[in-house]
Amino acid sequence: MPKAPKTAISPTRKENYPEWYQQVIKESDLAERSVVRGCMVIKPWGYALWENIVRSLDNMFKETGVKNAYFPLFIPLSFLEKEAEHVEGFAKECAVVTHHRLEKSPEGGLKPAGALNEPLVVRPTSETIIGDSFARWIKSYRDLPLLINQWANVVRWEMRTRMFLRTSEFLWQEGHTAHATSAEAVERTRLMLDVYARLAEEYLAMPVIRGRKSPAERFPGAVDTLCIESMMQDRKGLQAGTSHFLGQNFSKASGIRFQNAEEKEEFAWTTSWGASTRLIGGIIMTHGDDDGLILPPRVASAHIVLLPIFKNAQERILVMEYTEALAAQLTDRYYHDQKICVEIDDRDIGGARGWDWIKKGVPLRAEIGPRDISNDSVFVARRDRGVREKQAIARNDFVSGICSMLDDIQENIFNRARNHLRENSRTIDDAKAFYDYFTPNNQDQEKNQSEIHGGFSYSHWCGSESCETKIKNDLSVTIRCIPLNDEYGDKGKCICCGKDSDQRVVFAKAY
Amino acid sequence: MPKAPKTAISPTRKENYPEWYQQVIKESDLAERSVVRGCMVIKPWGYALWENIVRSLDNMFKETGVKNAYFPLFIPLSFLEKEAEHVEGFAKECAVVTHHRLEKSPEGGLKPAGALNEPLVVRPTSETIIGDSFARWIKSYRDLPLLINQWANVVRWEMRTRMFLRTSEFLWQEGHTAHATSAEAVERTRLMLDVYARLAEEYLAMPVIRGRKSPAERFPGAVDTLCIESMMQDRKGLQAGTSHFLGQNFSKASGIRFQNAEEKEEFAWTTSWGASTRLIGGIIMTHGDDDGLILPPRVASAHIVLLPIFKNAQERILVMEYTEALAAQLTDRYYHDQKICVEIDDRDIGGARGWDWIKKGVPLRAEIGPRDISNDSVFVARRDRGVREKQAIARNDFVSGICSMLDDIQENIFNRARNHLRENSRTIDDAKAFYDYFTPNNQDQEKNQSEIHGGFSYSHWCGSESCETKIKNDLSVTIRCIPLNDEYGDKGKCICCGKDSDQRVVFAKAY
Repeated sequence: MPKAPKTAISPTRKENYPEWYQQVIKESDLAERSVVRGCMVIKPWGYALWENIVRSLDNMFKETGVKNAYFPLFIPLSFLEKEAEHVEGFAKECAVVTHHRLEKSPEGGLKPAGALNEPLVVRPTSETIIGDSFARWIKSYRDLPLLINQWANVVRWEMRTRMFLRTSEFLWQEGHTAHATSAEAVERTRLMLDVYARLAEEYLAMPVIRGRKSPAERFPGAVDTLCIESMMQDRKGLQAGTSHFLGQNFSKASGIRFQNAEEKEEFAWTTSWGASTRLIGGIIMTHGDDDGLILPPRVASAHIVLLPIFKNAQERILVMEYTEALAAQLTDRYYHDQKICVEIDDRDIGGARGWDWIKKGVPLRAEIGPRDISNDSVFVARRDRGVREKQAIARNDFVSGICSMLDDIQENIFNRARNHLRENSRTIDDAKAFYDYFTPNNQDQEKNQSEIHGGFSYSHWCGSESCETKIKNDLSVTIRCIPLNDEYGDKGKCICCGKDSDQRVVFAKAY
Repeated sequence: MPKAPKTAISPTRKENYPEWYQQVIKESDLAERSVVRGCMVIKPWGYALWENIVRSLDNMFKETGVKNAYFPLFIPLSFLEKEAEHVEGFAKECAVVTHHRLEKSPEGGLKPAGALNEPLVVRPTSETIIGDSFARWIKSYRDLPLLINQWANVVRWEMRTRMFLRTSEFLWQEGHTAHATSAEAVERTRLMLDVYARLAEEYLAMPVIRGRKSPAERFPGAVDTLCIESMMQDRKGLQAGTSHFLGQNFSKASGIRFQNAEEKEEFAWTTSWGASTRLIGGIIMTHGDDDGLILPPRVASAHIVLLPIFKNAQERILVMEYTEALAAQLTDRYYHDQKICVEIDDRDIGGARGWDWIKKGVPLRAEIGPRDISNDSVFVARRDRGVREKQAIARNDFVSGICSMLDDIQENIFNRARNHLRENSRTIDDAKAFYDYFTPNNQDQEKNQSEIHGGFSYSHWCGSESCETKIKNDLSVTIRCIPLNDEYGDKGKCICCGKDSDQRVVFAKAY
């Protein structure tokens, strides 16, 4: 048996954060790269996490009156062209279907055949194809609001991909709503942002800032884009969900008209909002440590693993019987409306077994050996604490207390992330201090220069795209959002040009 | 208010079954055709039904140890070519991606650009791309069995499409497993067939015949294809799920090798199995009547609709209060592990309201007016009974009895479908009788000639493809399956050529 390494993941976060990220995904068995450029395979441990995120979000959507539906994967090219900014935004990264069969090529092998009259784009997002249905479904103000969501795969042909964060194909949901008034659509845009914030904070234990994108960072075709932004452990920002007020842009493009109460015809006001498998990247980089993944209990792929310990066949029988009985007891309990999900790992592979589950980030590990059984107790480790910190707990206390222990882990990792966000956020009003904040210092540079920077800076911005662009070019720092929270609503001078500014914005490097 | 038509759906089933089918889909609001050739939009009422089917099936899969994962949408052309029969089977109906961006064309508008080095096929099924992962995941017999399922969209470029039954894009699940021995893979193939049969019979109330496909009807690349076949109301067959034993064909194509307990390298034995949104077509054609859809309670998009009745604003307040209290009481109850799903429809549109819900097939409708409230009772109609058959039930009895009433509907529509299957199945041993059975008689012909035929015939078949083809060419009748049930295991003479035959097979026209 090789001696356990000092940390289960190599390199550590400090040594090389991007490589640490890839290694955590590999060692936790969440996902792998596929042979198809930029696409990934989501493995069972990763997919179970996604299923829990889906269920949590889907329930919240339905509570606000949203219904699910499904629209075609393919979008006729002419549809995408209907909204000028929209097609501009997606044209550079579209997978295009041009043929509908294969035939033998003269060189042997097969080649595309049956050219389509009109190429089809694999949906990068579905505003235009869903708009086509909405135009048919909506006739009168009585049909409004129309509140629809779709769970689907989408394709954006990214040139630089990173697992979960930016892949050519990804899984997501896209909500699309239509309303009789602008005010109601604006309200829905905000409501769905709050749903995403609740998912992030209550389920993923990921504190977020609610904000508005600068015009340059808006969704192509939107009037206003709201977003939640979170801070990863390398102090970069991650956009974790967006909610767009589309005004009448898409209803005009798709002909979504309704007769109002006065029997006059109007264009509807629409919104769209989405969150994706990118959230899994956020979980990894918010909570993971140098021993691997740490899963928030509310969405964890499993809540607990039971690790039976035995020296021989006789002990095995005794221990397995106890373990299975305990598993049955636990599985009968509910943790926030979901049955406790228990894994039993009886592989005979020595210390590697425990490390596997540490790396996979399961919230609780419980060892069960003959001595524990004679005490009617289990030996429990929490993933949010030190790897070697274990505690004997009487079986009954453990069973009755498991939910509060899971809640405690959930709260603990949320608080840790919130402290990290607070400690690495500053208000900066001086240009030199701002540039220093985002410029790597010598000590931090080492191997990992490009990844090191200050954190989030709440600084004033005059609103001009030229200042935004200059800062982006100089520092690779972008405006993550204009916070909705008016805590930062003081007036001041733009950090770039010194002109008057009404509000601070969040500047950061970002994924 | 127009007088209610004699039947809510026109034409009736007898008048024109294929058109009745399309009208039921339209009037029940399950789905609609999209602008994209052969693709459909699944509307909220249809998607809720699909979600319930997914949940039911997913639970059964997980009970057998299957885990979900997700694999790329795109398959490199070279992958599809790895298995000769497989690519042959799908080459004629593949959507092919050849470009990865759009650029301005000289005529204005956009054209495909960025040609791919290797075309990508939009998955028609995922044996080859999943095989690539399996080859990496499996090293030793300890990694087996590997039991994976994927919920996904797939594309088969069908020339003649029919909603739910045959669409260019559809939603499905595809299970893929790998085993150390042939026997174990064969056992899994059968186990999953039984899961499908259980879904069909217990959840969809659709009686099925479990059988084996003739070699000509096998999945391309399979050694053996098992299937469940059901009978629609027009006496045609519908294949509702398939489970394939793939032998070592795909493991050899993809290099899925493992070291056995004796440390020798072997190819794994694999299976695949799938069911799709086609099941919804089966539900429509098994249970629907001339007033529209009839949903099986176990998977219904909603269990009950409450229809408040009031003449003025004052009554409205009273009635809505009572209705909402009743809804809350019902929603608190569980029907087979799912909360009772209640709709309230308070639209003021007269009799059209009730008909809307009849056409949508909701199992129970309850009218609530001032007189019912004063009796503390509700006026309940069951969708499996005559449209005008309604019954006053004391509120408390209704609430406590709703689950058994739903179970009764479920049982009733299953029995009805089973009787229909029995009444329209025969054993036929005489060639002339066989041809007569499948040839429309004059009386039945009328408008709807191509749809009328006998039903299912259990007849002998010698096993030769030439007899199978002759019958198909003569009568458009195919071998639906060779039943697994040996009730029909007697020996006899082939219905076509008269040679010896070991077993009866099910002949029918089919979707």
